[in-house]
Amino acid sequence: MPRRILFTPGPLSTSPTVKSAMQEDLGSRDRSFLEIVAQIRRVLLEVAHLDPERYCAIPMQGSGTFSVEAVLSSVVPRNGRVLVLVNGAYGRRMANICQRLSLPHHVLECSERSPHDPAMVEATLDAAPDTSHVAVVHCETSTGLLNPVRDIGAVVARAGRSYLVDAMSSFGGMDLRPERWNVDYLVSSANKCLEGVPGFAFVLARKAALRESEGHARSLSLDLLEQWKGLERNGQFRFTPPTHCLLAFRQALVELEQEGGVKARAARYRANHVLLLRGMRQLGFRRYLPPENQSHVITSFLYPAHPRWSFQRFYDELNSRGMVIYPGKVSDADCFRIGTIGRMDQQDVRALLRAVGETMTAMGMDSPAQGRQHSWAGEGNTGGPGPA
Amino acid sequence: MPRRILFTPGPLSTSPTVKSAMQEDLGSRDRSFLEIVAQIRRVLLEVAHLDPERYCAIPMQGSGTFSVEAVLSSVVPRNGRVLVLVNGAYGRRMANICQRLSLPHHVLECSERSPHDPAMVEATLDAAPDTSHVAVVHCETSTGLLNPVRDIGAVVARAGRSYLVDAMSSFGGMDLRPERWNVDYLVSSANKCLEGVPGFAFVLARKAALRESEGHARSLSLDLLEQWKGLERNGQFRFTPPTHCLLAFRQALVELEQEGGVKARAARYRANHVLLLRGMRQLGFRRYLPPENQSHVITSFLYPAHPRWSFQRFYDELNSRGMVIYPGKVSDADCFRIGTIGRMDQQDVRALLRAVGETMTAMGMDSPAQGRQHSWAGEGNTGGPGPA
Repeated sequence: MPRRILFTPGPLSTSPTVKSAMQEDLGSRDRSFLEIVAQIRRVLLEVAHLDPERYCAIPMQGSGTFSVEAVLSSVVPRNGRVLVLVNGAYGRRMANICQRLSLPHHVLECSERSPHDPAMVEATLDAAPDTSHVAVVHCETSTGLLNPVRDIGAVVARAGRSYLVDAMSSFGGMDLRPERWNVDYLVSSANKCLEGVPGFAFVLARKAALRESEGHARSLSLDLLEQWKGLERNGQFRFTPPTHCLLAFRQALVELEQEGGVKARAARYRANHVLLLRGMRQLGFRRYLPPENQSHVITSFLYPAHPRWSFQRFYDELNSRGMVIYPGKVSDADCFRIGTIGRMDQQDVRALLRAVGETMTAMGMDSPAQGRQHSWAGEGNTGGPGPA
Repeated sequence: MPRRILFTPGPLSTSPTVKSAMQEDLGSRDRSFLEIVAQIRRVLLEVAHLDPERYCAIPMQGSGTFSVEAVLSSVVPRNGRVLVLVNGAYGRRMANICQRLSLPHHVLECSERSPHDPAMVEATLDAAPDTSHVAVVHCETSTGLLNPVRDIGAVVARAGRSYLVDAMSSFGGMDLRPERWNVDYLVSSANKCLEGVPGFAFVLARKAALRESEGHARSLSLDLLEQWKGLERNGQFRFTPPTHCLLAFRQALVELEQEGGVKARAARYRANHVLLLRGMRQLGFRRYLPPENQSHVITSFLYPAHPRWSFQRFYDELNSRGMVIYPGKVSDADCFRIGTIGRMDQQDVRALLRAVGETMTAMGMDSPAQGRQHSWAGEGNTGGPGPA
């Protein structure tokens, strides 16, 4: 099978060496495995510039959503209330988790094209003194939009509330400062910008906040405090961990360091993103978000208003060329998404752009190469403010 | 690093081909991956002799405990009540899950050396007509004890209750008949007798029972009905699945068939177990369980009452010889455990037995080879009925 490149928000393309690190069976209670877990936990704190005196890293089995639910279900007291900031599917998902858990919560929602406004958050907190926790998504993977987690964190800290940030698709791909930003719980996943394989996620937690959560957990499997206590007690996960995924992750962290750390990785991703945007614009596509709100992690493009357009056909044609893209996930426009994270570089992005051009030709859609740049791009869509 | 053999209840030793199946990154929504998921779900039903008209297979991210919690938290109605049968740590864990979830439940507990008595279950159900569900562990991985799930199932069915069986360490290593045994929900894991790698578990559910659980789920991540609906709707997991683990699992299922199916695998495991028992007896060890309650999956051995005995030393010496065993998990005796499942055969068991003999010599403990068979075995322990 020829190599496929995943232009997706994760699972994404990982290096051959990360995958080949999974060629060993380790006992989940064996010392050699426990050393790997300890090392991973240490390095995660380093990546986040966190002091191990004040913060801890807690890996949790399952997808990123499992870890978000682990935080919400474990740390909010019975008389607590969560303010969930929503401007996309992943913020919405946090609200759904609260609803399912019967956690008292309220939702502050803004457009999927706009970041949350810290002043609005402040006003909402002022008006709802019973709010104990604020939850926000850093990079909305549904669009690529960035929320101002630093400025919101300042508001949350001034108001004396606890702060949860879903940094699923940004951590490792952008240089984050959770402590400076007053984050109590930051959640991310092995298979995003840290370029591991899927199987677990993790929480970076402020110990003082976590210790206060004693007795709050509503689930046994997803009990964040017990997971931490177990790891501290004997280095073990309480329940069987995905040992092979952790082996892959250790290698992924080695490769992050070899690349030059998060800043170098962010620069590679940004270069991928810039090249993608330029190429897609030349091919006649428009992006969904205004440029000032757009991260370099993933980009949503509007469906072209061309009679021959079919996303399924587009997806399949690209797929047959070894390029895997992602469907859209916004409620007010038809989009598809292209991720620029994972083990890929500008050569891969150029290969994708060539494949997009070929695909448009195969679909009988005019392309700028044939002299009709922007003749159809974005028309008929429900809006899409700036040009790509 | 020399090959390590995991004589553990899982994660266990997997074949090189299972591990090398993880050398590919697949998109979690990509057709080729969805076909693999569909195939896995079909084969799991076949392994359990289940009619796809009446049963479905639902993989769930996380460890086996996550799937047990998924069932309990998803299918028990607000006015339901669970009877949990406990005779070991894993039965106890189900009770803990109920407690954490605030699920009304009661516990029928018997000795960790004895299987549950169906007549007692019947009497308990008669006395508690509000009991909606009965939950039992098939093979108590804490000891290796087998509960009579068939006979308990007959009692549960006669009483018109719903039936959950944790078959974590038996499924794939023993020929189970969930439908004949009136099982509504059977839970097992990828990294047990099916010889995959850890990262997900699965539930085999009777569709009619599952459909009745609408609205009962207390968790978003662990919502069993929604997980099933998602898989039926578009073939996808609702949240990122451990794609590489699923690739490994598909290969593991191919190798199960190549071996001759569950019956052939059970015969191999049984031969491993018989050889282990004989060898350990010759080395002076006694097992914890009476022989009639002992499965061929995992065996608990009593600590010898020898002044030089140290489990940590014993473990480390074996480990340095590439043999990984498991600590004990019973409350009334000091034991260690040796699993005989996974990609291993009698040659591996013989290698373990040699390593145990060497270890005892290294520890300065008399061994039967030096003519003192049974001189100390089991003495001073809190009892251990039959000889090994």
